[in-house]
Amino acid sequence: MIVGVPTETADGEKRVALTPPVAEDLVEDGHEVCVASGAGEGATYADADYEAVGCEVLDDREAVFERAEVLFQVRGLGATDTGTDPYREGQAVVGLLGPYEVAEDTLDDLADRGVSAFSLELMPRISRAQSMDALSSQASLGGYQATLMAAEELPKMFPMEMTAAGTIQPAEVFVIGAGVAGLKAIATAERLGASTKGHDVRLEVKREVESLGADFVELELPTEESGDEEGYAVEMGEEFYAEQRRQMERVVPESDVLITTAAIPGRPAPEIVTTEMIEDMDPGSVVVDLAAETGGNCEPTEAGETVEVDGVRVHGPTDLPSRVSHTASQQYANNCKHFLDNLLDEEGDLDFDFEDEIIDSTLLVHDGTVRNPHLDDGGEDE
Amino acid sequence: MIVGVPTETADGEKRVALTPPVAEDLVEDGHEVCVASGAGEGATYADADYEAVGCEVLDDREAVFERAEVLFQVRGLGATDTGTDPYREGQAVVGLLGPYEVAEDTLDDLADRGVSAFSLELMPRISRAQSMDALSSQASLGGYQATLMAAEELPKMFPMEMTAAGTIQPAEVFVIGAGVAGLKAIATAERLGASTKGHDVRLEVKREVESLGADFVELELPTEESGDEEGYAVEMGEEFYAEQRRQMERVVPESDVLITTAAIPGRPAPEIVTTEMIEDMDPGSVVVDLAAETGGNCEPTEAGETVEVDGVRVHGPTDLPSRVSHTASQQYANNCKHFLDNLLDEEGDLDFDFEDEIIDSTLLVHDGTVRNPHLDDGGEDE
Repeated sequence: MIVGVPTETADGEKRVALTPPVAEDLVEDGHEVCVASGAGEGATYADADYEAVGCEVLDDREAVFERAEVLFQVRGLGATDTGTDPYREGQAVVGLLGPYEVAEDTLDDLADRGVSAFSLELMPRISRAQSMDALSSQASLGGYQATLMAAEELPKMFPMEMTAAGTIQPAEVFVIGAGVAGLKAIATAERLGASTKGHDVRLEVKREVESLGADFVELELPTEESGDEEGYAVEMGEEFYAEQRRQMERVVPESDVLITTAAIPGRPAPEIVTTEMIEDMDPGSVVVDLAAETGGNCEPTEAGETVEVDGVRVHGPTDLPSRVSHTASQQYANNCKHFLDNLLDEEGDLDFDFEDEIIDSTLLVHDGTVRNPHLDDGGEDE
Repeated sequence: MIVGVPTETADGEKRVALTPPVAEDLVEDGHEVCVASGAGEGATYADADYEAVGCEVLDDREAVFERAEVLFQVRGLGATDTGTDPYREGQAVVGLLGPYEVAEDTLDDLADRGVSAFSLELMPRISRAQSMDALSSQASLGGYQATLMAAEELPKMFPMEMTAAGTIQPAEVFVIGAGVAGLKAIATAERLGASTKGHDVRLEVKREVESLGADFVELELPTEESGDEEGYAVEMGEEFYAEQRRQMERVVPESDVLITTAAIPGRPAPEIVTTEMIEDMDPGSVVVDLAAETGGNCEPTEAGETVEVDGVRVHGPTDLPSRVSHTASQQYANNCKHFLDNLLDEEGDLDFDFEDEIIDSTLLVHDGTVRNPHLDDGGEDE
């Protein structure tokens, strides 16, 4: 296979889909690798680092699309806003392609061009797929970075300390949504010594939250159907969220840091925290809303912006994994490599085996057809 | 006593010298407290918070100087650049007054006006004075914030992790100067899971560094006279620093984060890290030079600025404790309260007892005289 790595085009994207160490593995496996000049720069990899492990560095980004049989991208199609890349017939694309956001016309166009597009967002949550689960690997870094961002900005220190000048109380950190990002945000806050609470509608994650040393904020709500069979949160009724908001009024105001991570794949994020709750927080408190990209969990959140509400700064970052670009790229490149390994048959050719749940779930466009594997059920929850 | 708290005037200063909880203690002790309106704002304290504990809030900053018998300031005289405050005869001032930077004319003027000025930088390092040691309480927060700043900016994650997508190596953090700031920087990096190294010319701090879980970088150098009787580092010969620089060439380039904290009271900071060493660090690496205010430990450091050297960002922040303004103010206010308690006799009057080492050491101007207690020895190391 000839694996190609174009520069990323999404605004502010610093990650690269393939790092030199993983490129070296591909070369050792017998693949050719071509990389657009400057592709690794945002993740602190120079062209020379790629050349040193046997990659070809191409000055012309388009040339990568001409040469490559398989393309690794971080954000393609619906996950960027700069138009469709010049994919060509027979080419396979592996990346975060924004399957819920991508325009139908774009998919039809790709189908007409004979492209095979794999969207890593659609990875099934089965154990064999864990090493390819880019959503998880990136969400974990997002949670880490969210806590650091809040800690760096908060005018209080996180850990409790007994000093000669008196006792410093620990900062109160509250994390809503205990998926991969939320759990990592909790773990990082605990590492730093904050007094940490976690909340999730899925009661089954209570033990995970508590095993990190945090308290679990339990709501007196019916939560039987809050997780789907893959463990993702699903959308609940409006009454449920209203009741949840009332309960949140108790916990949010006493928090110094609020990190919200409650996202539902393909749906707008539930609004859990109202402007009033944030107004009741102490001035100087910090909110980081990781669900900003799909509308946010907090009423005042603006995607990509920071809003100040009564002295509380509400951040809606959409690029947190990209800010840890080096580590995020390492993880992502491994995800792509594992995905490619699974996609190739014993002769090293692409094998579109629809019996393989990983391939069947992630393949968005193939053989002239838009497959939309997970998206056919319209407004239904799974 | 009437204790007065003016707003701070130094550029970007967010701390306040007295917090409402400590003000409440003063009021309970029988003191009156007057606070300039807005003084606590940067540290997230509102005027109403002071009024609620019995303080008088004055709209006019000058009125605080007219009313108060004792003034608490964070940065006064030589520690700010906005001219002398309107101190009046018989008034006692307690603060970080920049005794090494303050102009002689300013001190003469204060002496003429009959002011008594206590400079907390000159606190003796005796156990009885620990609760008043503002340099230590603030330096600790500076070290904490330096590590957070570096962690937030570094494109690598700090902790080691074993994930489904592969192992993430821990970030390499190197802290030069293991005083209060350096030890807290090390402790915070260790909390976050980095692989941490510390170095100091004072071999006796080796055990402290190692007890935090970090490795001590030992130099093959004569270090017998590197600490004074109070444990502060003293200035060494040029030959010593040249040899130290050669040793640093080994450790600095392999670090992802370099935090330097080697300051010598009243002297320019020793230059320990050259531009060449920083050029040899990986792009994306982060340097935080806590000695920036006195010239910096790194050749390219600019006080208050960020300089980029071959893809490495070199920060020279001079306001790190102020960025943790809430906690820093709590600690500082406790320092001031303990100092005041020690300064008053049984009747609650100011008692300038020169037999008390704390008073004798810190009293910069008194009774029409500039005392310059620690500064008389000119260029000599102690």
